[in-house]
Amino acid sequence: MKRSIAYLGPTGTYAEVAALQWAKYFQQTTGELLDLCPYPSIAQALKATANQETQFTVVPVENSTEGSVSMTLDSLWLLPQLQVHRALVLPISHALISQFPTLQGIEKVYSHPQAIAQCQGWLEHNLPEARLIPTSSTAEALQSLALNLPVGAIASQRAAHLYGLPILAHPINDHPDNCTRFWTLSLEPSPGGSYTSLAFSVPANVPGALLRPLQTFATRGLNLSRIESRPSKKTLGDYLFFVDIEADVIQASVQEALVELRQTTETLKIFGSYTIAALPITV
Amino acid sequence: MKRSIAYLGPTGTYAEVAALQWAKYFQQTTGELLDLCPYPSIAQALKATANQETQFTVVPVENSTEGSVSMTLDSLWLLPQLQVHRALVLPISHALISQFPTLQGIEKVYSHPQAIAQCQGWLEHNLPEARLIPTSSTAEALQSLALNLPVGAIASQRAAHLYGLPILAHPINDHPDNCTRFWTLSLEPSPGGSYTSLAFSVPANVPGALLRPLQTFATRGLNLSRIESRPSKKTLGDYLFFVDIEADVIQASVQEALVELRQTTETLKIFGSYTIAALPITV
Repeated sequence: MKRSIAYLGPTGTYAEVAALQWAKYFQQTTGELLDLCPYPSIAQALKATANQETQFTVVPVENSTEGSVSMTLDSLWLLPQLQVHRALVLPISHALISQFPTLQGIEKVYSHPQAIAQCQGWLEHNLPEARLIPTSSTAEALQSLALNLPVGAIASQRAAHLYGLPILAHPINDHPDNCTRFWTLSLEPSPGGSYTSLAFSVPANVPGALLRPLQTFATRGLNLSRIESRPSKKTLGDYLFFVDIEADVIQASVQEALVELRQTTETLKIFGSYTIAALPITV
Repeated sequence: MKRSIAYLGPTGTYAEVAALQWAKYFQQTTGELLDLCPYPSIAQALKATANQETQFTVVPVENSTEGSVSMTLDSLWLLPQLQVHRALVLPISHALISQFPTLQGIEKVYSHPQAIAQCQGWLEHNLPEARLIPTSSTAEALQSLALNLPVGAIASQRAAHLYGLPILAHPINDHPDNCTRFWTLSLEPSPGGSYTSLAFSVPANVPGALLRPLQTFATRGLNLSRIESRPSKKTLGDYLFFVDIEADVIQASVQEALVELRQTTETLKIFGSYTIAALPITV
């Protein structure tokens, strides 16, 4: 049976580009072709793999302008059986797409909230009067466009080309180095690599409760490339932490750290070890 | 001249309740009445106080279900002259408001993205087919309702009463203890109190760069009640950290910690010391 990968659809999203990259890498390493399966939300894409509807999922984890993708982290905390197979950093360059002939006169701009936030300065300067209307993905925003209607959508140049739609302005993201880190996940064990990701909760209201886990890494010379807190959703002031370590889980120092972590954290979830691939082409 | 407080409007938002609480407290302590000034976004409310259009602003900082309010943190990093005067924890209980007679048949639900996220489970279970449409505030969502139209809005019971609109379901938030922490800010020095908030950036890609600032607090027995990372927006993997310490900035141990922090951080911004007020009534 042909295996498949879930992503936030429809056709034309940045997640689709990440899924295509993974499919290409998978074909190069295994000779197998993958089916691409669009889902209406990140949570549903992750659940599809957890429920064995698809063998892989690709999801955005973090953007350089807007930070962590909360829906991804919150869903992963509830689906710890999913393991990271690879990280991919994708340069993200947004376009203003419209069937209206000029920027002047555009009354509404549709896009995913993350994309709107990444273009906030440009929008305030160029379309200060436009109403900003969030959609569930950048590609979905294109469905709101129609001939001569004074509405625009923020999506990739690739999406504009796929749907045969005109670009009024590009690039419109406020930070030129705008990029997003994606993870490919699966129920299969992670392949190993120079990055290990994990998440843990610490006992609430215990002085220095977070310091001990951090010292566990530091005393072993393990560098943290990222630390992110999310609310436990139980009570204000009670958090989960998502941490990326620059080391492989098979290293003795990481194994020792994990033994110690199990004693100082309440719940510990390990998402595996993997490598990071950088995609040089901006989409 | 009568002084004023900015908040995310229009009338009927949770931020308005927080602004009313501050106005009441201000009147009790100074005898002065405050004008309430609604603004269309959190960023614009903060800028109003930074530009001396209003003397105070009240903004949401963190929700127990959805976590930090990125727009507040990102705006404050750019407006460090604003000082925290008081924190207020407001229990948040959402209602589904509509002029349509039944839940069955509702096709669209409008609300602020934070409110939609706080009711996600309820929406998936009760209105799985409804399209979720984000608005810039919960009160603004009510403007999309009309007689017999199959659309709903998520806002407070108070907002429904203010606008004379029927409630179809309440409470609809997934977590019963859902609450939001608000800050009142001003250009005046903060009054002092048992909490100190600050933000700092650390040199990028230096092993243990985050550990040193955390040890600065721990070795002095200073408890951190919160640590939150935000992207610096320069490059992926480069962060700012927002930290709350359970101590007053005038304490010798905090003063010592700040001297040490200036050496181990790149940029350090201190938002002052203040007390936290809890509001027992759910709105």
